[in-house]
Amino acid sequence: MVVTQVEPRIVTEVEGKKAVICFSGGVDSTTLLYDIVSRGYKVYPIIFDYGQRHRREIESASNICLKLGVPRKIIKLDALGELAPSVLTRENLEVPKVGYDIESMKQTVVPNRNMVFLSLAVSYAIGLGADQVFYAAHGGDHALYPDCRSEFVKSMQEAIRLNGIQLEAPYLHWSKYAIIKRGFELGVDYSLTWSCYEGKDLACGECGTCRERLEAFKLAGVEDPIKYKERR
Amino acid sequence: MVVTQVEPRIVTEVEGKKAVICFSGGVDSTTLLYDIVSRGYKVYPIIFDYGQRHRREIESASNICLKLGVPRKIIKLDALGELAPSVLTRENLEVPKVGYDIESMKQTVVPNRNMVFLSLAVSYAIGLGADQVFYAAHGGDHALYPDCRSEFVKSMQEAIRLNGIQLEAPYLHWSKYAIIKRGFELGVDYSLTWSCYEGKDLACGECGTCRERLEAFKLAGVEDPIKYKERR
Repeated sequence: MVVTQVEPRIVTEVEGKKAVICFSGGVDSTTLLYDIVSRGYKVYPIIFDYGQRHRREIESASNICLKLGVPRKIIKLDALGELAPSVLTRENLEVPKVGYDIESMKQTVVPNRNMVFLSLAVSYAIGLGADQVFYAAHGGDHALYPDCRSEFVKSMQEAIRLNGIQLEAPYLHWSKYAIIKRGFELGVDYSLTWSCYEGKDLACGECGTCRERLEAFKLAGVEDPIKYKERR
Repeated sequence: MVVTQVEPRIVTEVEGKKAVICFSGGVDSTTLLYDIVSRGYKVYPIIFDYGQRHRREIESASNICLKLGVPRKIIKLDALGELAPSVLTRENLEVPKVGYDIESMKQTVVPNRNMVFLSLAVSYAIGLGADQVFYAAHGGDHALYPDCRSEFVKSMQEAIRLNGIQLEAPYLHWSKYAIIKRGFELGVDYSLTWSCYEGKDLACGECGTCRERLEAFKLAGVEDPIKYKERR
């Protein structure tokens, strides 16, 4: 694997243009948020409270918005957990800890989550008069999530364009560690981010998303500043 | 205009196959519900409570589900009204009464509503193990609603197919009066349906959707069985 080349900062072209971003407070969308803020967009993050087990991420997302001085919008969306089962939205199911392999991670997929998030982000963008909606799908998600793949992004771009809105997924072909490298260039404060699916006081270090995060920091050659219960 | 030819009933091919339908309790989606029930699908209507002024339609939709013996699913979705303004979701705005012309009707558009509904219907379908999601976009909606046009349906079909779900919009090129003709063949009880945007005891007969409905019944050559405050 090669680290994807990051583009130089482009500020003047977009200065003051409004953009909505689907924002979770995790590594990928936090980097993208810093990225588009640095490019001069007027950014409106939309954060979804869908009954996720790791609701801590909403607090993290809010703190990051405060730090960057961007107006957060938290959307309550119990419907998603209600409509389709996932270990992320059902307290009685257990988060798998057997590693970040496809089969165990499949249980953590919230069906069609990104399409739901993007569609609401587009409603928000129309209401704001924004031209663009950003989301941080990346290469590492392709195997597990149909709604992070190029074909999905392409079809959604076409559907969304009919509303006069451009859907952007600039990290679509990036590895997670390339995103982290980009984040370090941008000065992202990763101590404020949250990834762990367990959502307890400390990141567990054992669930798929903790393992993926730790691995990506290692590959990027930088220290993950958050505290873990245990680092595998 | 020519009335679109309706297909003969096809039952055996789909017997017992599960399908989700976006269901409002209005003329179009009620006809489509009867249509797919008659074809032998096991149908799961999903009804959205998004803070619409005409919440009466939810009661109508529920009664139709009860009558047909299909399990209704009501999804609370305040987010939609919160994210983008529309006279349908804001009590302080007035429903336009100057006729069913494009400019006045534009105020009643809830931005990106169908994409939001379809994305949640797909989550529901995945949870149920259903193969198909139906919605009742029709030819008369094309001018006003980007999310009822062929290009939209095509792009969404592609995005949704990545989840193994087929999106179906069988009335996409039909006129509303052709749908009503089809409904009469199917024995649809239109007295149970609701269209008026005002959502009062009687349909107003003056708002865009009342006018469109009355016009379509007239063109279909049948009587609209609901009571109006005033028929224009």
